[in-house]
Amino acid sequence: MGIGYKRIEIDGGTGGVTLPAQAGMEKEVLELAERWGIDAVRDSDGTRLSPEIAYMGFTVYSTLCLVREDNEWAKAHRGFLQQAYLISDRVSALGPRLEIDPMARYYAEQFAPDDRHDPGRYWEVYDRSAGESLPPSAWTWDRATRRIVVEGAVPGHVYTASFLADQLWEPVSMYNHITNAWTEEHRMPLDPRHPEARARLLEVLREWLAERPSTGVVRFTTFFYNFDLAYDERGKERRVDWFGYGFCASALAMDEFERERGYRLSPEDLIDQGYGNNPARLPSKAFLDWMDFIQRFVALFARECVDLVHAAGKKAYMFLGDHWAGTEPYGPYFGSIGLDGVVGAGADAVTTRMIADIPVRETEARFYPYLFPDVFREGGDPAGEARRVWARSRRAILRSPMDRMGYGGYLSLACRFPAFVAEVEGICRRFREIRAATSLAEPGLDGRRFASPWVAPFKVCVLNAWGETRRWMGHQVAHSLPNRRCHAYLGFLEALAGQAFDLEFLSFDQVLREGLPRLPAVLVLAGDAGTAWSGGEAWENPRLAAAIRLWVARGGGLIGIGEPSARERQGAYFQLRDILGVEREMGLGLNWRERPPAPRPGHFVDAGLSERPDLGEGISQVRALPSGARVLRASGPGGEDACLAVNRFGSGRAAYVAGLPYSHENARLLERALYWAAGAEAAFETWRAQDPRVELHAYPSVGRFAAVNCADEPVSTNLTLGDGTRIAVELASLECAWFEYDGGGAP
Amino acid sequence: MGIGYKRIEIDGGTGGVTLPAQAGMEKEVLELAERWGIDAVRDSDGTRLSPEIAYMGFTVYSTLCLVREDNEWAKAHRGFLQQAYLISDRVSALGPRLEIDPMARYYAEQFAPDDRHDPGRYWEVYDRSAGESLPPSAWTWDRATRRIVVEGAVPGHVYTASFLADQLWEPVSMYNHITNAWTEEHRMPLDPRHPEARARLLEVLREWLAERPSTGVVRFTTFFYNFDLAYDERGKERRVDWFGYGFCASALAMDEFERERGYRLSPEDLIDQGYGNNPARLPSKAFLDWMDFIQRFVALFARECVDLVHAAGKKAYMFLGDHWAGTEPYGPYFGSIGLDGVVGAGADAVTTRMIADIPVRETEARFYPYLFPDVFREGGDPAGEARRVWARSRRAILRSPMDRMGYGGYLSLACRFPAFVAEVEGICRRFREIRAATSLAEPGLDGRRFASPWVAPFKVCVLNAWGETRRWMGHQVAHSLPNRRCHAYLGFLEALAGQAFDLEFLSFDQVLREGLPRLPAVLVLAGDAGTAWSGGEAWENPRLAAAIRLWVARGGGLIGIGEPSARERQGAYFQLRDILGVEREMGLGLNWRERPPAPRPGHFVDAGLSERPDLGEGISQVRALPSGARVLRASGPGGEDACLAVNRFGSGRAAYVAGLPYSHENARLLERALYWAAGAEAAFETWRAQDPRVELHAYPSVGRFAAVNCADEPVSTNLTLGDGTRIAVELASLECAWFEYDGGGAP
Repeated sequence: MGIGYKRIEIDGGTGGVTLPAQAGMEKEVLELAERWGIDAVRDSDGTRLSPEIAYMGFTVYSTLCLVREDNEWAKAHRGFLQQAYLISDRVSALGPRLEIDPMARYYAEQFAPDDRHDPGRYWEVYDRSAGESLPPSAWTWDRATRRIVVEGAVPGHVYTASFLADQLWEPVSMYNHITNAWTEEHRMPLDPRHPEARARLLEVLREWLAERPSTGVVRFTTFFYNFDLAYDERGKERRVDWFGYGFCASALAMDEFERERGYRLSPEDLIDQGYGNNPARLPSKAFLDWMDFIQRFVALFARECVDLVHAAGKKAYMFLGDHWAGTEPYGPYFGSIGLDGVVGAGADAVTTRMIADIPVRETEARFYPYLFPDVFREGGDPAGEARRVWARSRRAILRSPMDRMGYGGYLSLACRFPAFVAEVEGICRRFREIRAATSLAEPGLDGRRFASPWVAPFKVCVLNAWGETRRWMGHQVAHSLPNRRCHAYLGFLEALAGQAFDLEFLSFDQVLREGLPRLPAVLVLAGDAGTAWSGGEAWENPRLAAAIRLWVARGGGLIGIGEPSARERQGAYFQLRDILGVEREMGLGLNWRERPPAPRPGHFVDAGLSERPDLGEGISQVRALPSGARVLRASGPGGEDACLAVNRFGSGRAAYVAGLPYSHENARLLERALYWAAGAEAAFETWRAQDPRVELHAYPSVGRFAAVNCADEPVSTNLTLGDGTRIAVELASLECAWFEYDGGGAP
Repeated sequence: MGIGYKRIEIDGGTGGVTLPAQAGMEKEVLELAERWGIDAVRDSDGTRLSPEIAYMGFTVYSTLCLVREDNEWAKAHRGFLQQAYLISDRVSALGPRLEIDPMARYYAEQFAPDDRHDPGRYWEVYDRSAGESLPPSAWTWDRATRRIVVEGAVPGHVYTASFLADQLWEPVSMYNHITNAWTEEHRMPLDPRHPEARARLLEVLREWLAERPSTGVVRFTTFFYNFDLAYDERGKERRVDWFGYGFCASALAMDEFERERGYRLSPEDLIDQGYGNNPARLPSKAFLDWMDFIQRFVALFARECVDLVHAAGKKAYMFLGDHWAGTEPYGPYFGSIGLDGVVGAGADAVTTRMIADIPVRETEARFYPYLFPDVFREGGDPAGEARRVWARSRRAILRSPMDRMGYGGYLSLACRFPAFVAEVEGICRRFREIRAATSLAEPGLDGRRFASPWVAPFKVCVLNAWGETRRWMGHQVAHSLPNRRCHAYLGFLEALAGQAFDLEFLSFDQVLREGLPRLPAVLVLAGDAGTAWSGGEAWENPRLAAAIRLWVARGGGLIGIGEPSARERQGAYFQLRDILGVEREMGLGLNWRERPPAPRPGHFVDAGLSERPDLGEGISQVRALPSGARVLRASGPGGEDACLAVNRFGSGRAAYVAGLPYSHENARLLERALYWAAGAEAAFETWRAQDPRVELHAYPSVGRFAAVNCADEPVSTNLTLGDGTRIAVELASLECAWFEYDGGGAP
């Protein structure tokens, strides 16, 4: 007897959708309330709600970015502006006298060097050739010419200056000026680290709350410090690090850090050779201390703000974006802020899952596209973009159900695109179906309100330098970074974000401290050489490789993507080459004497895979070691570069993939590799659709499962249920079909 | 009034050609003597000359590889066999007990571990994870099982063993067994470092000389130690390093080194993590000392041998190949050997030029193909190969004329291919034309017998870790190494080997010691990151980059190919990025915010260059810096990777090229880049053919020039002579047309 099952229709009801409204659009709001089933309205940066809208009966979200709210007060208190550590261009000394213009290629309307605080104490001139900081006596700041002057430079050496600058223009307001052609006064950001500014911000918040009796939810956008977002002299983005902490810096913060932690940071600790501790860098102890220092401060003051909101009888949400630096939703202080919910941008499965997994009562996805003129324009395809984003994001929501969804921007723009309005009507309905189908009748003992989806019978751990702190945030910078290889790495996260795995993000330090996860489990290690993702100098500590080696030999699994464990050291490039069974020739060895043999496809891992899958640009000159991996696919001119290979090591297994841009085919390949590496091939068919375009999600505690067509075309396929029962389904484009099931003959 | 010129026919006469003869081929020898114009006959490994041939009136070359000559004596004196340092496979310890089979994947007929000498003193077990040598007390050599046993291994660490092995089979004789299906007894190589063996070798040489009254030239093949050539358990090449010194090692040599130099080398000094100090590695001080130690020994004993040859009234030549380790024709001791000539294999311009430039009285190119069954077989194209090799090699000979040419192998094979015989007939004639056309009537004061060709009005310096020691030897390993990128680098050397430049090879150390060359000059820096060619850790010394920076700023030129000066350090990847104006994004930066602008072709450097030249596989994510290089060509998906760019730095200039596989087009591109970087564009047309397939070589001291069609098709083009006179020529496929000229109206 197999499982009993039947297809069902889910009534998702209404609600769960937030609409960006604006004064003058009352009619449209009511119409969309009906069509989209909205239960909340919000204002946006640059729009207001009318009293009519505010009292239509919807929950009212009001956005608030406290630090830029009172521009008059900021203008009167320039000493309390936020600051930032910036690095100058690299300047080559051709003689002993060197001048550095710190502001070269920065935007003068955004920054001004802060010379109120002693540059000798807060700035730093660095000899990049020698790798040394110059003593303050070796240079001067010429206030007249606005140049740093070094008189005793070493000719031929390259120098940089790290300097504190006042932020004259809050970067998100600047972004909106540029993107949305705003003309309003430039807003200046206040730094709450100054007690006077902090007091003023609380005052502003109190007044603001008092003035908004109809507001139900205060949506902080976000709290205090923006991620690093510096513009160049043309007003184009010069440096963007969505994870940066450089804009949290100030003379005061440097001094307070020293008092609190007992040692002083150098500007170089934050400047980091110009890399600014971006997430691809292995974090230094100093930077981790700085993050912790900022997080504690942000959480404490954010808590004060949230308490005021609660005292006013309203809920407090934060937007994960813009001024989110220091909030770290997967960090140790986040819970203490006391938020009721988090809203974040959903562009795909990774970003949506990043919001969905945040440990907070309510999460809301604000889907792309923004209702902004860059997409909502003649020739734009907002309906198509909304559909693509939903198809991607839905995969994450099916794994980690969310409470709410919405869109951001200007309703007036959306209403001019009826196809978009219709598309979103369907998205809202389907979103609510998931919410309803996976809701528990009663919250679990752990407060959980949604049914846990079924997962594979082994754990999957994404291993890198960051671990849970950067859950779903690895390689995510690829969104804005024209680094093509990042996309090849991001793809595995995109796949995982919608797959049935018990997933953990594990840091190298955690491995060293706590060891590796209990078996059965598989590690995934993906990235370019030298990065936080691949490990870089982390491999200098032999305990790391040794721990992984023993763990795999005992039966663990390892998936390596790109340049896993790459570090030229002691005759090896891939430090885990014995486990992976492949090595990369970097032009130092003479060890590859023969043309590698042709790949031998036909393994469990490549079953159903096309002959020439798109595994990214490939990593050149990766070869199987003698008695090493079995190569399943090769690429490159002459087909010499192993791009998919499997290996056994002791009782464990490993697979190597050159890259995994997201596609249905590659997502399936990753699943097969994970099951094989875990030694769980026999379980692979459980809760599985035969066609890789279709994904199956089961929720045993509510006795339901969903068959989801991830492709924008009809698909007919067979599903294998939990007990092996096979059923045929036909699914329309992007359809998500719901079923009820029971245990059948199973005990 | 322009230059007066007229086309001339050169009578090269006969001679200058060495034929490999063999007993039983007397008729063929006489026929070829006529057709090829030979004046010397030689035997080969495995062939003998008959008395008839020896007395035909030709100079008789007799090959001799002393160390394998007396196999009976070698078998009776196993303690005097040559040895080698070998590294075992990497073995992963999964528990505290570890066994290493040092001979795993080595060929048991080639090597046997030497445990006559205390393994505790001469071997080394290395913990590659910790990067540490184990004390000898930590391991034992089990003579019964032939295993090294480590009892206290760190579980999870990776170990290797470095061990001395006796060479049971001389590797060239082994190569011939494999390639030419020899069946004769395996020959064992004697080590002349043992006084008894040395005495025996001199005795053998005396007897050998006495037995060969008709021999005019003793062609040593070569002297004593073969380059590193280890076979694997299947008898396939496991590790080949044509530049290796690992086969010069022995217990005695290690002890003598210590006595002579005052410190002891560790096995690791020679093993070098398994890289074996191959030329792509930056040489360590210990390895340079070892090379010097070996060279001194080889030169001293070789001198003894050469003296015996001279005393017997014969000439002594050496073959640059096989047992050439320690002879280093561009090294400090080479001259002291007292050789009359050097023969070396010519496969293309680089290898031919490597022979041609050797400071010795006579040089002889032994052109490919070898008369071996791998080419001279059904379906083979020996005539075509000979033609292609000649077309390439001729470029080098026109720059650095040679005395002699020849072929190697078995005449019996060649005679079955009449097309080959006919092709070579033409090659011999044209070779002699060059020799005759460029010969000085009287040797110069410096002993020079050939006219110096005209060169560009600036110097070109190839910069790497080796300098003149590896003149024309950089990247040359590419011949046998399936490292595709090597070919992209070898191409620039191949181009230079036939171009009209005053060329020097410069080492990083030399730059630090002596500074950079007098201006005008251009440096060429080409290679993969981390190699001796690109510089790797040499860039940790800031003096190197500083010297180059100041020199370029003063007017020097720099051509960077591939990953020039690549070393992730202090925020830069290309350490000379300011000079080159380009940088490579390695996944650590967030500095590239925009799609790079489209390339701007139409510069002096890319004049005449096709839209999509073949610049190798490309180096991904190379971008122009802000206010940096002008990109002339870009490649990669989306055309974002700069692959040809030019930049100005101070008064100097630089060009970046991703790779330069050899082609007529790329050779011309390199010339244009060099002239531009030198600031010598105005001189570019001097002695230049308009069509890049045609090269012009002028010999002012003899008033001749040659217009050479390097293409195997007819070409019509214009030539610009030294004073700007332009003339039209029509050249047949591969034709080399000779002209006489005078100074015309010039003073």
